[in-house]
Formats: sequence, C-alpha cells, structure tokens
Amino acid sequence: MKLQKPKGTRDFYPEDMAWRQHLCDAWRKVSIRNGFEQVDGPIFERLDLYKVKSGEGIVSELFHFNDRGGRGLALRPEFTPTLARMVADRASSLPRPTKWFCIPNCCRAENPQRGRLREFWQWNIDMLGIDSPVADAEAIFTAVDFFREMGLNSSHLRIKISHRQTVRHILSKLGVGDDRMLAAFELLDRRDKMEPEEFAEAAAPLGLDAASAGRFDEVCRMKYAAGRLDAMREALSIHEQIEDLAALDEQLHAFGIADWCEYDLGVVRGLAYYTGTVFEVHEATGAMRAVAGGGRYDNLIELFDGPSMPAVGFGMGDVVISLVLFDKGLIPEHLAARPDVFIVPVSDAAAARLPGVLADLRSRGLHTRFSYRSTRNLGKLLKEASSLRARYALILDDRLAEARAHLKDMESGEQEEVMLTEVATRVNSHTVVES
Amino acid sequence: MKLQKPKGTRDFYPEDMAWRQHLCDAWRKVSIRNGFEQVDGPIFERLDLYKVKSGEGIVSELFHFNDRGGRGLALRPEFTPTLARMVADRASSLPRPTKWFCIPNCCRAENPQRGRLREFWQWNIDMLGIDSPVADAEAIFTAVDFFREMGLNSSHLRIKISHRQTVRHILSKLGVGDDRMLAAFELLDRRDKMEPEEFAEAAAPLGLDAASAGRFDEVCRMKYAAGRLDAMREALSIHEQIEDLAALDEQLHAFGIADWCEYDLGVVRGLAYYTGTVFEVHEATGAMRAVAGGGRYDNLIELFDGPSMPAVGFGMGDVVISLVLFDKGLIPEHLAARPDVFIVPVSDAAAARLPGVLADLRSRGLHTRFSYRSTRNLGKLLKEASSLRARYALILDDRLAEARAHLKDMESGEQEEVMLTEVATRVNSHTVVES
Repeated sequence: MKLQKPKGTRDFYPEDMAWRQHLCDAWRKVSIRNGFEQVDGPIFERLDLYKVKSGEGIVSELFHFNDRGGRGLALRPEFTPTLARMVADRASSLPRPTKWFCIPNCCRAENPQRGRLREFWQWNIDMLGIDSPVADAEAIFTAVDFFREMGLNSSHLRIKISHRQTVRHILSKLGVGDDRMLAAFELLDRRDKMEPEEFAEAAAPLGLDAASAGRFDEVCRMKYAAGRLDAMREALSIHEQIEDLAALDEQLHAFGIADWCEYDLGVVRGLAYYTGTVFEVHEATGAMRAVAGGGRYDNLIELFDGPSMPAVGFGMGDVVISLVLFDKGLIPEHLAARPDVFIVPVSDAAAARLPGVLADLRSRGLHTRFSYRSTRNLGKLLKEASSLRARYALILDDRLAEARAHLKDMESGEQEEVMLTEVATRVNSHTVVES
Repeated sequence: MKLQKPKGTRDFYPEDMAWRQHLCDAWRKVSIRNGFEQVDGPIFERLDLYKVKSGEGIVSELFHFNDRGGRGLALRPEFTPTLARMVADRASSLPRPTKWFCIPNCCRAENPQRGRLREFWQWNIDMLGIDSPVADAEAIFTAVDFFREMGLNSSHLRIKISHRQTVRHILSKLGVGDDRMLAAFELLDRRDKMEPEEFAEAAAPLGLDAASAGRFDEVCRMKYAAGRLDAMREALSIHEQIEDLAALDEQLHAFGIADWCEYDLGVVRGLAYYTGTVFEVHEATGAMRAVAGGGRYDNLIELFDGPSMPAVGFGMGDVVISLVLFDKGLIPEHLAARPDVFIVPVSDAAAARLPGVLADLRSRGLHTRFSYRSTRNLGKLLKEASSLRARYALILDDRLAEARAHLKDMESGEQEEVMLTEVATRVNSHTVVES
C-alpha cells in the first residue's frame, strides 16, 4: 500500500510519456511559431500569493505546507498568479506586448474524476501590454493553430465566446443594478446546475422579475455563429456595448477562424478576473469538460502590485484534450523514437569492436542501438532491429579489418558496403521527415 | 513581501527558460540516441515511499503535507524511489534491459547555497535488468556524450570511479570486520570534513589502528588514471576483488572515454544504496559540488517489493552543470527562437490583409511575426525584423492584389517577388541547420 502512487496522479511509462512529450512538443512548436516565448516559475509559491486573486476560499483546493521557517507554501494550482507576480516584478523593462507561454505541471487537492486529476500539465499563452481585438483574435488563433496541428477541425470543437461588456449591458437593461452585477454573473455561472424554479428564486433579489429572469435564461441559451452578430443584435435588441464583440468578430474572420467560433453569452469563467472577451473551447457534442478557457484580464497585473496593464490569454490542460484526441482516433500510433542504426556484429571479434563503433555513431548524433543478447545470428539480430523499427542495420563482420561494414536499409532491404567513417553521412543524407 | 517568490526557487524569464530548455533538449537528445526511453512520475509521492530507501531521517529534508484524508505526501527530492516503484510494479512485463531516462523537477527543503536550490531539474538515466560492465560503461559514456555535446572536454571534467567490492576488500585487509563495514563506509564519506586526529579517533572502534587508519586515508587519496589499474594493484597490494573494476576499465577503453576517467577510492555516494561501481563527475579543479553521480544499485528494486533486478544509472542536476558551462563560456549566446518570417505591411490596405497571411504562414509551420505598432514605415519595420533576427521579411504592398509580395533575405539583403502561396516552400528550401 505504501508503494502505490498517490490518488489522482499518473505514472508515465514510456508509451504514456511519449504521448505527453508529443503533446507538449506540439504546444511548444505552435507557441513559438505564433511568436510566444517560454517562461516558467516555481512549482510552489507562497500560499498568500494565491489568496490575492482567489481569496481565502482557494486554500482548501491547494496542497499546502510550511517551510522550516513556518511560512505557508502551496503547490501551484495554475500559472496565472506566478505570471502576474513575474510580470509585475519586471513590468517597466518588458516589451509591449510581452507574449509568453508556459507548460507547467500544476496540482489541485480536488477529488479525481474523468478529465480532472490532482497533477496535470497546462499550456498557457498570454499577451500582456496590448489592448486590441487583434490580440484577442491572435490568442484564439493560437488555440486553433494547435487544434489543426493535431488533426482536429471545426466540426470537432466549438469555441464559445462571450464578452463581459455585452452581458453587463443586457443584465442592466433587464433591471440588474451595478451593485448586483457580480451576483448576477455568479448566478449566470451556476445556472446550468439549477432547476428553473430555483433559478427564478435566486434571480428575484437581483432585480430580475419572473419575466426578466426568463428572458435572461433565454438569452444565455442563444448561440450565434461568428459573422451573425446582426442576428444577435436584433434578437437581443442591443445596439450599443457590442462594439468590442463586433471588432473581435471582424478579426476572427481576418484570421480565418470564424468557422470555429460562436457567440454564447452563457459562458462566464473566472468571475472577479476577466474583464472583456471570455471564451471556452468545448467538444462539439458538449460531452466533456471545457478543453480550454481564457479571455481578457485587464486588471490582474495591477492586483498583483504591478502597473495597469491590459492582458489576454488562455489555459489548456493535458487531460481533457488527450481524451478528445483519443476519442477522435487522433493519437498517432508510433510515438517511440525510431533508431537510425542498429548494429549487428556477426562474430565475437566484431562484437569486441562494437562499443567503439557505437560510441562514434552516437557522438555523431545518430540514435544507435544494439542487442544486449549474446547471439551472433544475423537473422535474429535483424529481427530485433526490425521490431525496434530501426531505419538501418549496420552489419559488422570481417570487413571491419579494413574499417568497412555493410549498411542495410531496413525498409527497402538494399545493402551496400561502406566505410565506417561514412555511415553517419550516408544515414543522414537519406533522412526523411517523419509525419 | 507576500508577492516574492519562495526562497531557493527560480523564476524562468524567457532568457533563463531558453537556457533551461536548451539544456533539457540536449539531455533528451543524448538520452534518445543512447537508446533510453523517457518516463516520468508524480511530482509528489506518499511520504512513506521515501522512508523505504532513506529511513525516517529523510523526512526533515522533504517538503511534506497531508491530503484531505490525512495521508502523508511529499514533494519528490529525487526520482529513484519513483523509478523503483514503477519498475517493481511492472517488472514482469518490462524488457531486459529496460533503459529509462527522465528530467523531473525535484524539491528539497534544504538551505539554498551555491549549486544547491530548493527546486531543480535532474536528468536521470537508468538501465535495469542487466549486470554487465558494458552497461556500467554505457551509462558513463552517456554522460560523456552529453558533456561533449555541450562543448566540454576531458580537461574540463574528471569522472572519478570507485567500486564497492574493491574498497570493501581493502578495508577488510586493513582489519575492518564485516559487521563494521557500513560504519567504515560512513567514515570514508565524512573523511573530507574531518581533522586527521578526529579521523584516527573515529577509525579506532572500526578495528583500524593508527597505522591502518593512516594507510586507509592514504589509499583514499590516491588517484589512478583509467588504464593504470596495474599501478593501483601494486600500490595497494590487491590482486583479487578487483576483477569488476578491471572489466569496467576494459569497457571504458572500448567506448573511447578512458581519458575522462580516473579511479578514486575516496568516492563513496549513497551508502545503503550502491552495490558495485560508483562514480562522480567533478569539475577538473575540484572547485564545485559534483556535477553528476551514480553507480550500480543491484538491491534497490527488491527493496521496493520488486524482484531481484540489477541496475545502474546516474543523476545530474541542472544547477551545477549550468555553473560549469557558464564558467567555461559554453552557454550559447542566441538561444531565443529565430523567426522565419517577419511580415511588413507598407500600407493600411496591406495591414488589413496581414492576419490572413500571418495565419496561413503559421499554419504551414513558419515562425511568423509582425509589428504591433501602427507604423507603415518600411525602414522602421525592417529594423524591428532585424532586431528579432528574422531570417526573412515579407513585404506586403499593392502587389497583394495579385496575391504577390516581396520576400527579402535578411542576411544577404536579396529580395525577390513571390506568390504568397510559395512563401513557405521558398523559406523552407533555404532552411539551414543552426549550430
């Protein structure tokens, strides 16, 4: 029992790790080509840091402990407080915009369930110091660029977009006063888990009578495709406080990702946190938890003692996206690194020379393997090379005396005699980019 | 104060992260070409797991906490207990040998000092299920392959090798009984921090009289280059229990790494842990903490409820190797990802088309950037492209109407008119492998 892994965590054996690495490599590649630079922070922070954004309530969701001096520390449940601390600390010297990404492991003390674990990896991208619909659209494009990279298309996923300004305007028109706005957003967030009567009952103290509450609920269930803002304007009779959404709509088209997006005013996310655009990515059937979520958070850096600094970003955990990709059959089959060369000594004399040949090829950058078994049987050894999917077998026999060996292409079966010093060049010249 | 990072941890801003990533990429590349597969485990384990190998004494060195059910958990201070748990759990289905590597972040609740932090990254390689000097030498070769990859040579670092069997034999000859052997190894480990009188006083109860203690101390200070085992045999009058070291010596020559290695019987490492070969890598002047350390640990898997399974491996933290590489001037200057294309729109009409061109190039895999400033000045924008070390500038002007633009090679200064659809092919065909 004492030797079991902790609940809600994962062991990554080679096949599991190959997938995690493949996913993280894709996140990294997509981040870099979209102009983001990688950052990271400590796996644990001072416990107080997490209270700045989330209040005392967060503590029960954290793994926390004390250092020797009795100071409270906690494992990071997300990267945003660390990001805000790092940005606030160097705000004056950072370029505008600053575009950062990271792929931290994060820990939450919650009960493990499908799509939710106690340790997970989370891709974050953030653009700081820029307040423009171009930035909002570029953040969303970066998510889409990743989805496409993994083989997903707009029939698999929906990006649901809302905007604080527009929802606030609608709530206001329905009779919610400014002092009750936060409570109204909270109700909006809990709406899906409530019975209609319960909802109406909770809506009343916010200034929403039965008719307004019904209308509010109705509004939150409407969905409009990107490009259909006119229909939304008409249905909701809103003609102001929708300019930001309209500007974003234009950019989503300019970036060529409008077909992935729809407006859904029921999307809320982090209540005291987001200030403008908010979005969530869901599997098209709505069957799972959100794949990713983000938006604009223009007040956060200030909250962490930094200057006023607009910002937009999103986070995507490894767990739900992996479930989605698995469901769609989009997890590639062969993720194990493929050996370039498998060395096959067919005599004891050749085997004695193997370490030197091996060391030379590896130092030249070739992924080189050999059999740890004592057999010198050509057929058996070629079979082992084949089972590892080696690209070439290098057969060492008595030609070694002249520093020569036989290089066999494991796919075509062709074999040629080469100088040992030529092997690396020969193998590299045939390198093909693998899909 | 509450917004400071915790003591002994690091923030990785882009320039710091680029180095960490470069180092981890090198570890990964070298591991893979040497035939290792990547694994990982949870960032925290049950506290009890760490007591299996290290006893109750380890607890004060750990960051530990309870889960909601009151079970003790601890941040991993190293990967070996996780590795042993994972291997023990699947021992019957793992290939022999199993060759694993990992690059976990690890945490220790110790006082931060030069070369020692509270969170660090550690490269581990392990070969399990093989008991052969070839495996010991291959593990050491993998370290050397990495050092060479980073530009280090055998004048920068020394690999100090000892062997439990040989040291035990020498101690036994000097009069240490089997029941006092562990205590003698402990003394050997603390030797460097003791005064000569203190050492002699501690040696006496182990069965070492003054002459033997002096001789023991002397023996531990002798160093023999690889290939000079005969000199060692003669100086120490040992002619048995040195066969394993002799077999390793032969393999170090076969792998071509003998010039990096020396025998130093003063090297001890993890007392109740290693069983055969042990080694440490030190900066040649001996100025710093060990860069890496490892050896053979044939009893560990059994200790973690697995089958009897021989094993050899080593660990290397990111902190000391980074200090060494920095001291030697071997940290590359330009680690930031270099943009393939920087888009330069020279009119408002062209700027309106920018997002579409940008999205297309990024989706084709090109690292593509643009200016967030509103200027349309060609000179200013090319200057920005140049400061980012972009390989090409793509100048968008009225040729856009025919889906054409100007592609400028930022190094040669050459410029040609191209179809927008051709840009990716054109840029990729000129791709050079960067050093």
